Amino acid sequence: MAGNTFGDLFKITTFGESHGEAMGGIIDGCPSGITINIDEVQKELGRRKPGQSSIVTQRKESDKVQFLSGLFEGKTTGTPIGFIIPNENQKSADYSHIKDVYRPSHADYVYEQKYGIRDYKGGGRSSARETVSRVVAGAIAKQLLAKVTINAFVSSVGEIFIDKPYQALDFSLTESNPVRCPDRATAEKMEAYIKDVKKQGDTVGGTITCVLKNVPIGLGEPVFDKLHAELGKAMLSINAVKGFEYGSGFCGAKMKGSEHNDLFNEDGTTKTNLSGGIQGGISNGMDIYFRVAFKPVATLMQSQQTINKDGKIVKMQGKGRHDACVVPRAVPIVEAMAALVIADFYLKERLNRQ
Amino acid sequence: MAGNTFGDLFKITTFGESHGEAMGGIIDGCPSGITINIDEVQKELGRRKPGQSSIVTQRKESDKVQFLSGLFEGKTTGTPIGFIIPNENQKSADYSHIKDVYRPSHADYVYEQKYGIRDYKGGGRSSARETVSRVVAGAIAKQLLAKVTINAFVSSVGEIFIDKPYQALDFSLTESNPVRCPDRATAEKMEAYIKDVKKQGDTVGGTITCVLKNVPIGLGEPVFDKLHAELGKAMLSINAVKGFEYGSGFCGAKMKGSEHNDLFNEDGTTKTNLSGGIQGGISNGMDIYFRVAFKPVATLMQSQQTINKDGKIVKMQGKGRHDACVVPRAVPIVEAMAALVIADFYLKERLNRQ
Amino acid sequence: MAGNTFGDLFKITTFGESHGEAMGGIIDGCPSGITINIDEVQKELGRRKPGQSSIVTQRKESDKVQFLSGLFEGKTTGTPIGFIIPNENQKSADYSHIKDVYRPSHADYVYEQKYGIRDYKGGGRSSARETVSRVVAGAIAKQLLAKVTINAFVSSVGEIFIDKPYQALDFSLTESNPVRCPDRATAEKMEAYIKDVKKQGDTVGGTITCVLKNVPIGLGEPVFDKLHAELGKAMLSINAVKGFEYGSGFCGAKMKGSEHNDLFNEDGTTKTNLSGGIQGGISNGMDIYFRVAFKPVATLMQSQQTINKDGKIVKMQGKGRHDACVVPRAVPIVEAMAALVIADFYLKERLNRQ
Amino acid sequence: MAGNTFGDLFKITTFGESHGEAMGGIIDGCPSGITINIDEVQKELGRRKPGQSSIVTQRKESDKVQFLSGLFEGKTTGTPIGFIIPNENQKSADYSHIKDVYRPSHADYVYEQKYGIRDYKGGGRSSARETVSRVVAGAIAKQLLAKVTINAFVSSVGEIFIDKPYQALDFSLTESNPVRCPDRATAEKMEAYIKDVKKQGDTVGGTITCVLKNVPIGLGEPVFDKLHAELGKAMLSINAVKGFEYGSGFCGAKMKGSEHNDLFNEDGTTKTNLSGGIQGGISNGMDIYFRVAFKPVATLMQSQQTINKDGKIVKMQGKGRHDACVVPRAVPIVEAMAALVIADFYLKERLNRQ
Repeated sequence: MAGNTFGDLFKITTFGESHGEAMGGIIDGCPSGITINIDEVQKELGRRKPGQSSIVTQRKESDKVQFLSGLFEGKTTGTPIGFIIPNENQKSADYSHIKDVYRPSHADYVYEQKYGIRDYKGGGRSSARETVSRVVAGAIAKQLLAKVTINAFVSSVGEIFIDKPYQALDFSLTESNPVRCPDRATAEKMEAYIKDVKKQGDTVGGTITCVLKNVPIGLGEPVFDKLHAELGKAMLSINAVKGFEYGSGFCGAKMKGSEHNDLFNEDGTTKTNLSGGIQGGISNGMDIYFRVAFKPVATLMQSQQTINKDGKIVKMQGKGRHDACVVPRAVPIVEAMAALVIADFYLKERLNRQ
Repeated sequence: MAGNTFGDLFKITTFGESHGEAMGGIIDGCPSGITINIDEVQKELGRRKPGQSSIVTQRKESDKVQFLSGLFEGKTTGTPIGFIIPNENQKSADYSHIKDVYRPSHADYVYEQKYGIRDYKGGGRSSARETVSRVVAGAIAKQLLAKVTINAFVSSVGEIFIDKPYQALDFSLTESNPVRCPDRATAEKMEAYIKDVKKQGDTVGGTITCVLKNVPIGLGEPVFDKLHAELGKAMLSINAVKGFEYGSGFCGAKMKGSEHNDLFNEDGTTKTNLSGGIQGGISNGMDIYFRVAFKPVATLMQSQQTINKDGKIVKMQGKGRHDACVVPRAVPIVEAMAALVIADFYLKERLNRQ
Repeated sequence: MAGNTFGDLFKITTFGESHGEAMGGIIDGCPSGITINIDEVQKELGRRKPGQSSIVTQRKESDKVQFLSGLFEGKTTGTPIGFIIPNENQKSADYSHIKDVYRPSHADYVYEQKYGIRDYKGGGRSSARETVSRVVAGAIAKQLLAKVTINAFVSSVGEIFIDKPYQALDFSLTESNPVRCPDRATAEKMEAYIKDVKKQGDTVGGTITCVLKNVPIGLGEPVFDKLHAELGKAMLSINAVKGFEYGSGFCGAKMKGSEHNDLFNEDGTTKTNLSGGIQGGISNGMDIYFRVAFKPVATLMQSQQTINKDGKIVKMQGKGRHDACVVPRAVPIVEAMAALVIADFYLKERLNRQ
Repeated sequence: MAGNTFGDLFKITTFGESHGEAMGGIIDGCPSGITINIDEVQKELGRRKPGQSSIVTQRKESDKVQFLSGLFEGKTTGTPIGFIIPNENQKSADYSHIKDVYRPSHADYVYEQKYGIRDYKGGGRSSARETVSRVVAGAIAKQLLAKVTINAFVSSVGEIFIDKPYQALDFSLTESNPVRCPDRATAEKMEAYIKDVKKQGDTVGGTITCVLKNVPIGLGEPVFDKLHAELGKAMLSINAVKGFEYGSGFCGAKMKGSEHNDLFNEDGTTKTNLSGGIQGGISNGMDIYFRVAFKPVATLMQSQQTINKDGKIVKMQGKGRHDACVVPRAVPIVEAMAALVIADFYLKERLNRQ
C-alpha cells in the first residue's frame, strides 16, 4: 500500500533514504536458472551514476551493488534477490540549510504534512537516489528478457529536439556523448545549452524516447492493466516526470481514423505503427515506442524565495552539486522501468492459456 | 493478475463482454455508513450512455444498474457492493461480418494470439462497454469523496481546441452541449466538425482535461505509487487513450527551473501551479489538473483493407452504430477513474501515522 | 483488504448477504480454453444446498447459478467469469426477533462494533450462505485441475469417529448417506446421533477429512505461502472452523524424529507419509490429507440468554430452519476451498523456472 | 506470488539463504512517528538465537540486526524499514555430505523438482534461519501494538504437557527455563526428556500455546481473511508446523452447541470463551488463544537411509549442531508472527468506517 513495490509477478521492493546507510531492495519472483552477469548490472549503475561527465552532478558515489541472496553459482535460484548499495556521500552537514525550510517544487512540504516527520537530509525517500535500486532490478529484468532490446535516448532538451523519426537513428551512438542523444548534431547543441543553463545557476527539462523491439505478441492485460497503462505508470513514477505518450500520442488526438488506423500485412504485422506496438493494451509484435516528459530540476544554484516551518518567507539557494538537466542520467532509469514492466507481463503471459 | 481489478483499498473488479448477458462488478473496500444516492449513479451512467445526442452512437442501451449487495437502508455496510448492468443490445448477427476478420487498430488480432479463443461479438472484453462498470464504481467513489469536486471536459477535437486556461471556464456549461465542452463557441465548432467527419464515415480524436479541487493534502505515495502515476495509469487504461500529462506536462519539459518552480505563499499554497497540485507524487492542496489524449475511433463507416484468420487480405466496413468521436462520452469515464484513484489514496491516507 | 477475495492468480471475489437480492462473485485468472461443464457446477451446489435430507436445514433455495460472462461456446475465454445465485428465501420477517439482539457465539455483536451498522437479516455477510459462491468457484477450479482428485468426507460427529485410516475407505460411498461419511456403520451412528441432538433443539460439531490425490510435485511456495499454510487459511476461513491439521498433525507433535521421518523409495516417493504429501511447504507427489474441526452450530432451537443493543439481558430462541450439524453440508465447501488453493498454486507453478 | 511477503498493510518481505551473505528484509507500511527501541528488537533475536542453552543447537550466530533505512532520530518515518542480519556461520564445507543427497522429511527433493536448482548449503531458503527476519519485523510490530500483550509458551514436548488452563499460569516464568514452559515442574520434565532424546541422536516434537490480551474489538475481516484464518496461516508458515487450533479447537468439534456457546455479560464480554476471542473472524475483545503443533526436527544425529540425486539408496547422518527439539526457540517466532497478523488488522481497522 505504501507504494514501495513495483510489479505483480516480477516484483521489486525498494528501501533507503539518500543520506541513510544504504539503498537497496528485494527482487522477488525472478524465475530460477537465469545466468546473471553482475558486470552488466554494475554497468547500468554506471550509466546512472553521478559524476560521469561535466554536465551532470559531481557528487561522488561509487554505487557498488552487493547481492546478498538469490544467486547460486552464477544463476538465479528462484528465491528473492536481496541487494544493497551503500551510501557513501552522507555528509548531513550539507543539508542543515534546508532543515527547517521547504524547497519550492520539492516534496519537503507535503512530506511533513503527510507523515508529520521528515528526514530532511537530501530529500530522504523522495530523492532520485532511490532509482539506483530500480536500475539494479531493471538490469536483472533485462537479463531475463534476453531477446528484447530496449533503447532509450534523450529526444529533447528545452526547445532543442531530434527532428527525425526514431527509425533514422543509430542507437549505438546514444552512449557516445554525455547527453545520451544518438543524433550527433543535436547532441552537441543540447550539451552546449545545458552548460549555458548551468552557468546561470538554472536548470532545464527535456524528454526521453524509448523504443522496445522484439517484445513477444500478447503481453498486457485488456482492461485496467493495459501494457501502455503500466508503462505509463512506471514512467510517471520516475522523479520529475510530467507526461507520457506512446505511439501517436497527443498527435494522434488530432488525427482522423482513416489516417490513424494501422492496416495489416498478411503476416499480421502492420503497414504503419501509429498504435505504437500495442492494440487494446496488448503487444502486437511491432516496435513499442513512447515518450516521457521531464520537468526542469527544482534545485537551483540561484537565490529563490520560499517558506520555513514557521510559515515565514525566507531566501534560499541550492548548495552542493546538482544536475542542471536530469534527462541524460534518467535514460538508464527509463530503460530499467520499461524492463520491469515487460518482465512482469512476460511472466503473466504464462498464465493465459490452459 | 488478469487486470480486472483497479485500486488497492477502494477496489473495483469488473466483468462482462459487450454482447454477453450483463456487465457488472464488485466494489470492495468502501467504508460503512456512507449514504448512497442511487439516482446519482444512474445519472452518471446516463452521461456515458449511447444515444444521448446526434453526435454519438445511436445504439440503444438503457444501462440500468442493479445493486445486489452491500447497501442496507440506503447506506453502505462495509461489505462488497455487487452490481450488474444487463446488456440489452445483444444481436449477435450484427457481428457475423467480423467473425473471421481482424479489424485494423482493434484488439481482435492480439486477443486471438493471446488467448487462442475470441468472443468475436463486439470486441468482447476489449469493448468500451466495459467502462459502464467503472462509471458505477466512480459514482460511488464520488459519494465517498463528498468534498472533492471533479470536473472533466472536452478540451480539443481534432485541431480544434479551447484557447483559454481552465480557470477561465465555467464548468457548469460542460453538460449544456453534446460535445461536453464548457466553452460555447469552441463547442459549436467541435460539434460541426464531428458531424462533418461522421458524414465522411470517418472518425476523429480529441483530448479531455480534468480538474480536481479540494483534494486533501497528503494523498499519494512517494515512490512507485505517486498520485500522478496512478492517475496516469487510470487514464491510460481507458479505451483509445494515447497520452497523459499533468500540470505543465510536455510543455514543462521545455522550461527552465527558474520559470517552472512554484513559489510558496506563507500559508503553504503556491503562487503558480505548474506542478499541477502534486509534489513528489503527493497532493499539496492546490488544484490537480491533467490532460488525456484519445485517438480516433478505429471502426470506420468506410471500406478498409484488413486480413482474415487465414492471413488473406479482405475488404471490410463497419456496420451498425458507432461513435465518430469518443471524447464526449469519455468525459464521465475520466471523472470516474479520477474518483477511483482519489478514493483509494483517501483511504491509504488513514494509514500514514501512528 | 476487506477480505472478499481468495487466491492470487486463480482468484475468486464474492459478494452478497444471505437475505439480499443475490449472492455472486467473479472468478478472475482462469486460463482460456477450458471446457466447462455447468451441470457439474450445479451438482456441487446441490451437495451444499439446504433441504437435501432430513438431517439438514429445510430452508428452500434452488441455488441456481447464472453465468454472466467469461464463457464462450462452452469454454473459458480468459476473461473474468461473473456469476450470480439469486436468493429466493428472503423473508425478512423471519429475522425481526433478532434485530436488536446479539445472538451468542454469532458475529452480530462484533459486526456492530466493527462497522457501526449491521444487516441483521440472517447474519448478513457472515452467514454461511456466502459459501455458495465458493462452491461455484471451486467447481470451476476442479475442472481446471482435471487430473487431481479431491475427496472430503465427514470423519467425526461429536464423539463418534471413523476408526480407520483413510486408505481403508471407499470414497464412492461418501454420497451414499446424508452424513457424507464413507464408512457405513459409522455413518448410521452419526445420523442417529444428529437426529437425537436435533430433537433436543441442540447442535453438535464434527470434523471433515480431505484427501487430495495426483497433485503435481512442486506446488506451494517455500516461505510464507506454504501449501499447507494456504490450505489451513482456506479451511479456517469456512464458517465454524476451529482447527486444521495436516499429515501427522497434532499427533506428530508427540513423536520422535526417528518415528516421524518419511524415508524415500528410489523413485522419490516415500515409504510412509506422515508429512501429508508436503515437504517444506511444497507438494511432493504423495497424497495430501488434512483434517478440519467444526464447532457446533450456534443457533439453537432452545431458549438461551443473551443481550440486546441496550446491553440488557434477554431470552431468545432460534426460529426457522437451521442445521443441527453443519459438517455434512460443509463437505463440498471443504473440497471447493481445497480446489481453489490447488488451482492457485497450479498456476504459480508456471512461474518458477526460466 | 513467490510468497516472500507477509501482510497486506503492515508488510514484511524477507530474503536470504542460511549460508549466504546475510538474511534480511523490508518492513513496509509501518506508520510514521513510532518510537523504536532497537534493544527490544535485539532481545527478541536473542530469544530465537542458537546457542542460548544446552538443549538447543550450539551453532554460533550473533544475529545482530542492522537497520538501513526508515528510522530517523529514533522514530519511524513511514518509509520502508530495510534491515540485514549478516550470516556468520557460513562454512559451506559442513554441507558437502548432503550436496547430492535428499534428506528425509526435508525440502531438498521438492526444491530440486520445483526450481531445477538448489542451494544445497543448509537448506537454503527453506532453513528455519529465515525466521530471523520475521522476529525483527515482529519486534517492530509489537512496538506498534503497545497495548496488546502476546505471550507464547511451550505447552507440550512429546507426551509431556501442561495440565492446567493458561489462566493458571504465570507468563513471567516462561523465560526462566530453557524450555520456555511457564510451569516449573513440567518444564523440568520437558528439559530432562529433551536431553534424553538428544543423547539418542533423536529429536522430538511439541506444541506452543499463545495468548493475546487487549486486542481491540473489531479486528479481522468477515469472509476469507478471518482473524483466526490469518493467524492459522501465519503459524502454519513456520517451519515444522503441522497443526493449528484456536479457542475450543479440535475439542470443540466434539461438543454440543448448548455447551459451546459463549453467553454474553451485559457489557458485551462473555461468561466463557470457547470462541477464543474471535466471533465470525472478528476479535470480540476477549483473550485470543491458540495452539500450534510442531513435528520433530527431521535432521537426526543417527544414521538414516535416503536417496541421492541418481535415485540410489544411501546412508546418511546429520552432522554439526542441530536442535533436538525446536519448540523452545520457536516461541519468539510464534509471538512475532502473531504480532504481524495483529498489526496488519490493526491498520485495516482504520478503513472500515466513513
